[in-house]
Amino acid sequence: MSKIKLGILGGGEDSLIGVLHRVASSMFDKYEVVGGVFDPTYDKSLNFGKKLGLDPDRLYRDLDHLVEEENKRAEEDRIQVISVLTPNFLHFPMAKKLVENNFHVICEKPLTTTYEEAKVLVDLQAEKGKIFGVTYTYTGYPMVRQMKQMIADGVIGKIQKVDVQYYQGWINPIIHDKEKRSSTWRLDPGKSGISCCIGDIGTHAFNMVEYVTGQQVEQILADLNYLYEDNPMDIDGTVLLRFSGKAKGVLRASQIATGEENNFTVQIYGEKGGLKWQQENPNYLYLMVDGKPLQVLKPGHVYNSDFSLEGTKLPPGHPEGIFDSMGNIYLGIANAINGKKKFDGAYPLLQEGARGMKFIEKTVASHKEGNVWIKLDD
Amino acid sequence: MSKIKLGILGGGEDSLIGVLHRVASSMFDKYEVVGGVFDPTYDKSLNFGKKLGLDPDRLYRDLDHLVEEENKRAEEDRIQVISVLTPNFLHFPMAKKLVENNFHVICEKPLTTTYEEAKVLVDLQAEKGKIFGVTYTYTGYPMVRQMKQMIADGVIGKIQKVDVQYYQGWINPIIHDKEKRSSTWRLDPGKSGISCCIGDIGTHAFNMVEYVTGQQVEQILADLNYLYEDNPMDIDGTVLLRFSGKAKGVLRASQIATGEENNFTVQIYGEKGGLKWQQENPNYLYLMVDGKPLQVLKPGHVYNSDFSLEGTKLPPGHPEGIFDSMGNIYLGIANAINGKKKFDGAYPLLQEGARGMKFIEKTVASHKEGNVWIKLDD
Amino acid sequence: MSKIKLGILGGGEDSLIGVLHRVASSMFDKYEVVGGVFDPTYDKSLNFGKKLGLDPDRLYRDLDHLVEEENKRAEEDRIQVISVLTPNFLHFPMAKKLVENNFHVICEKPLTTTYEEAKVLVDLQAEKGKIFGVTYTYTGYPMVRQMKQMIADGVIGKIQKVDVQYYQGWINPIIHDKEKRSSTWRLDPGKSGISCCIGDIGTHAFNMVEYVTGQQVEQILADLNYLYEDNPMDIDGTVLLRFSGKAKGVLRASQIATGEENNFTVQIYGEKGGLKWQQENPNYLYLMVDGKPLQVLKPGHVYNSDFSLEGTKLPPGHPEGIFDSMGNIYLGIANAINGKKKFDGAYPLLQEGARGMKFIEKTVASHKEGNVWIKLDD
Amino acid sequence: MSKIKLGILGGGEDSLIGVLHRVASSMFDKYEVVGGVFDPTYDKSLNFGKKLGLDPDRLYRDLDHLVEEENKRAEEDRIQVISVLTPNFLHFPMAKKLVENNFHVICEKPLTTTYEEAKVLVDLQAEKGKIFGVTYTYTGYPMVRQMKQMIADGVIGKIQKVDVQYYQGWINPIIHDKEKRSSTWRLDPGKSGISCCIGDIGTHAFNMVEYVTGQQVEQILADLNYLYEDNPMDIDGTVLLRFSGKAKGVLRASQIATGEENNFTVQIYGEKGGLKWQQENPNYLYLMVDGKPLQVLKPGHVYNSDFSLEGTKLPPGHPEGIFDSMGNIYLGIANAINGKKKFDGAYPLLQEGARGMKFIEKTVASHKEGNVWIKLDD
Repeated sequence: MSKIKLGILGGGEDSLIGVLHRVASSMFDKYEVVGGVFDPTYDKSLNFGKKLGLDPDRLYRDLDHLVEEENKRAEEDRIQVISVLTPNFLHFPMAKKLVENNFHVICEKPLTTTYEEAKVLVDLQAEKGKIFGVTYTYTGYPMVRQMKQMIADGVIGKIQKVDVQYYQGWINPIIHDKEKRSSTWRLDPGKSGISCCIGDIGTHAFNMVEYVTGQQVEQILADLNYLYEDNPMDIDGTVLLRFSGKAKGVLRASQIATGEENNFTVQIYGEKGGLKWQQENPNYLYLMVDGKPLQVLKPGHVYNSDFSLEGTKLPPGHPEGIFDSMGNIYLGIANAINGKKKFDGAYPLLQEGARGMKFIEKTVASHKEGNVWIKLDD
Repeated sequence: MSKIKLGILGGGEDSLIGVLHRVASSMFDKYEVVGGVFDPTYDKSLNFGKKLGLDPDRLYRDLDHLVEEENKRAEEDRIQVISVLTPNFLHFPMAKKLVENNFHVICEKPLTTTYEEAKVLVDLQAEKGKIFGVTYTYTGYPMVRQMKQMIADGVIGKIQKVDVQYYQGWINPIIHDKEKRSSTWRLDPGKSGISCCIGDIGTHAFNMVEYVTGQQVEQILADLNYLYEDNPMDIDGTVLLRFSGKAKGVLRASQIATGEENNFTVQIYGEKGGLKWQQENPNYLYLMVDGKPLQVLKPGHVYNSDFSLEGTKLPPGHPEGIFDSMGNIYLGIANAINGKKKFDGAYPLLQEGARGMKFIEKTVASHKEGNVWIKLDD
Repeated sequence: MSKIKLGILGGGEDSLIGVLHRVASSMFDKYEVVGGVFDPTYDKSLNFGKKLGLDPDRLYRDLDHLVEEENKRAEEDRIQVISVLTPNFLHFPMAKKLVENNFHVICEKPLTTTYEEAKVLVDLQAEKGKIFGVTYTYTGYPMVRQMKQMIADGVIGKIQKVDVQYYQGWINPIIHDKEKRSSTWRLDPGKSGISCCIGDIGTHAFNMVEYVTGQQVEQILADLNYLYEDNPMDIDGTVLLRFSGKAKGVLRASQIATGEENNFTVQIYGEKGGLKWQQENPNYLYLMVDGKPLQVLKPGHVYNSDFSLEGTKLPPGHPEGIFDSMGNIYLGIANAINGKKKFDGAYPLLQEGARGMKFIEKTVASHKEGNVWIKLDD
Repeated sequence: MSKIKLGILGGGEDSLIGVLHRVASSMFDKYEVVGGVFDPTYDKSLNFGKKLGLDPDRLYRDLDHLVEEENKRAEEDRIQVISVLTPNFLHFPMAKKLVENNFHVICEKPLTTTYEEAKVLVDLQAEKGKIFGVTYTYTGYPMVRQMKQMIADGVIGKIQKVDVQYYQGWINPIIHDKEKRSSTWRLDPGKSGISCCIGDIGTHAFNMVEYVTGQQVEQILADLNYLYEDNPMDIDGTVLLRFSGKAKGVLRASQIATGEENNFTVQIYGEKGGLKWQQENPNYLYLMVDGKPLQVLKPGHVYNSDFSLEGTKLPPGHPEGIFDSMGNIYLGIANAINGKKKFDGAYPLLQEGARGMKFIEKTVASHKEGNVWIKLDD
């Protein structure tokens, strides 16, 4: 089976997310980057593409040209899937055009800027039947996948308590400085939508708890923090959660947890045990069972599920990281494109991206209405 | 200066809390246990007291006898302070009688069963001027004291985010078994008051955040969990907090966090940095400053405050634990009794005990009224 | 049963070791400190003893008076056991006199200044049949005891590799400063014997590996470090070990591991698994079994042995520390004195103290002879 | 600048090392894999190469054909550098032929099977002037590079104590089973040279301490363990070290540390402080300075050196792992090939590979001669 031809929108010179996606796509020898539009300025895009060793013919002026030209090619030579790494507000129009034109899509999160847009994509994809992955990167870690599997297997029994934290501190030096604040796109509703903290990292936390528990959040009550009256965007928030399975939970997200880097922690407790995982030390999964020694599971061991093991390339003790996690998501999407789906949850679905958009909107609504309970689906 | 004469109520044979208080009282050579009522059954109390090597004359039949007989003694020979380690519902009548009769008091938490009772004690103590300590044990750890001092000194700047967790799992094997549940006094409102989880451990968390931040919680919104409809007592809860200093926070407490032992964690974030402390590893205090290496402070080093250093008996690297923490509180009370107060916060005041009672009542009220904001002081 | 009457030699005002022993003796309500000689200066001793609330009649001018006067008392009133906390060179004459006069003895380490002296005590004690404990404090930790038990039970199978580290950094600021060096008694062979690092902490490490493995070291090859030619005392060393059970091992000790506090770590590997313990986090015991999740055992859980559980006073999650560890050793000695021995290894025997002296002498010999193998017993 | 054309020898289907090198080569967009010999069986190599999307014309029958055919190509189209991932005994003849024919070389470790062979390569390379990197993977971690820089900058002062541990347990289930043992190539001197443990992992440890300290080991005294008399290969060993800078040290390596995965730990102590790093948690570097809080440095922060920062692709808190470490080494080699060397130590030199071979031979000699001191250079 030959490699999948991959195009990229955005992610050019100096883009970190570009590096992440390109490396991830290379990890399992499933993809070949063949072209794209790396920058809105054509020259920059062209130069960057050349540096990657790409055929200049496939370094397009813009998405329209890409679609037009690629569609002229023979099917076996055509770009099959496109990674959308452009600024958030472009995700929707680009992804829409791509699905309409029968490309598979890999889209960065947040999927869109509104839930309305997200629903449009969901309907369109249902109609077109293309593969559409949203890169909630963290679900690609082997120990997250192991956690999901163990919960599904009943290792911790019926879930009774969910606790998720996503704490960063990077906005702290910005928020207290009005000048810096005004030049930060994440704090500009025009560019970033209705939410900063919940939109950027709260959605990861939300997706993660639904992912690992296999349960849906039914109701939320949110308290957000804007710190300054003239700051229109939340930079911290706590969301009380009620799950379909009757469990209660709490989601905490912050960008003013000064000194925190990317401290994303998940704790799930059931009738038979508890499980804990931390993104900054992703190769440790803690299983707590009452009256038993704490167990620490690590990647690559035979005691892990096949799904988890698929995501580890080297033997135990050789730490893999976030590039590898993204690589696993790319692998899941490749398998789906190749019609060889092996595991549920192998990549985040478009529907999860849409659900994230709904979560953001409902969270802001709960807060604005006075910290009241709101149903997620009504 | 001779040792302070200490009496004990409760804490007899097989009592863990009794061991904790006796050992703590011995740590700085400030106290001498001379008598008390160790058990409601006189014979048991007598036997136990003899095992401790006490004079049988001071092993009293009950509190009334104790008060009567001790008051007959010359002042320099009289019991000066009494530790109240009896079941919760007895704290109030006993403490009241003791203060009325001019004893200093050390009382286990929760101080009383209602806030009304607590207020009575506060008023009485103000009138009598006796020393009255409430054993929120955890505030005695050297690194908690260091945290308090560093926050007061402005090391992390103005506080903007408070997060406190107190997770245990011990009720999990009980709550799902109706028989066990009915025989657990903590789950019996008649014995344990209106709250289990918030009353037992939520108050510790509440006291701790007010202690280290030096700020008061002004408003709360609580969501408690009872898991079963026929269970009258909360066993888990999340409380949103708003502080006098405008910071927001969240307090999480659970007794159904299966597999957790005594996972009490405090995270305080300010404009200049963050501080973290965990009870199960009490000798590590984490200071996070944006763009600087994480710093880990440990007890006994010269970089700690005098208040913190007073609470460490051995050089760095010799781990002290919860007995030592309680020992530090006993030391603070001894210094107060001896009129040699050195540090604010050296022991938890009666007022803090009373405030804990108020927190419990308001938390339950917020939950019962539909998870709404309630002012703590109105 | 009434409390054991305990006397103390040394450990007066400002003595840390004095605090440690007094608190430890109080932890299980087995001992009552009744007198002793706390300081060579009688007035100081007297004042200190009064502060402890002791009867001035039993605050003796010196050891001779103590022995004479105590022997005049009725047996049930007499001091039964004496803790020897004086400078190292006094351990031998004092302990000898005490055993000769039928006192039980608790002696700080190092037991003596030479192996010759130690042998005299061993012979004397055999003749007199008194209880004689040497306070290798670290063997009192519950998880060390659990480790010993698990190895004895075959949990890790036949031992094949032993690794023990005892790293401190406290001599670093002294060793490079000739003035400070000359005023440090540990670096003065006249006061401290033939070895500094091996004598002070290497012996702990040596005792620990023999204690937990139940095997004896048969041969050693040592390389010591003195850093400066004019420094007569080792401050760092590595010792290759060969055990009776054919396992090989390595012991590393240093007082110039700059920045280390009291980093004493034991790693034992067998055919079936490995065990690891660290003194600075004494409540965690790591069990590694090939192909299984890492297990972390903690004190107070039912999965621990009775011997381990005896050494934990509070439920899991309430950290106990080094005072508690010493308390456990005092408990073991109390049980022995009371004729109620429950567990092998409940306190370090005189023979272990003597063996430590032999280890020091042989280690220095191996180094001085050019880093060659030497038999421990010949 | 266009990408460097990379060829690969070995590393075909199911090869983990092949994945590691291919992914690493892709990480900074500096290389393009264009061909090679992935398997000694031509068909397998061909099929695998096609799966990678390579031009079948450059999937050669063997190294001779590769050299011949590539040399026919125009210089700008020719393979510039070749990664040698074949079994150990082939490293020497292949690397030799490659250098002779003017290819740059990236060679897995151990470089050769004897020090004699290694010297031949060193001389040849000096003559030919080609770039030759040896993939001691662990030196690519950002925090190892930071450690090297800090030591060079004098942060911990003059080094006085070096301690390095490389513990694995994977041979444990093999060594006790004669059948398994005989089918393990690492335990077969014919395939693996004169040493198993020291040759495989001891060399990593040796290279690491010379790398980070910038000092050379001058003398060694080794004690190896073979466990069984009929096992010809060491599976565990301790090596005493003396450095050019007068520091002493100890290197410990084991493959029978049951339950250990890849526990490679480096501790360096100087007059001013200590530094610690552990491969299994590679993103934490511990700086201990006497009397100061412990500092924990992490990748990507501005306080790190440029050399360290070059090796981090994402912001702090996004864990990178061993693939990224190898990627950094490939980057260093790419920069060298492109004549843009930026940092000393950016990739392990041929000379370091040769020195590793010498270390192996001298270690075995020291052991066999009765655990005696041997000079590394004589």
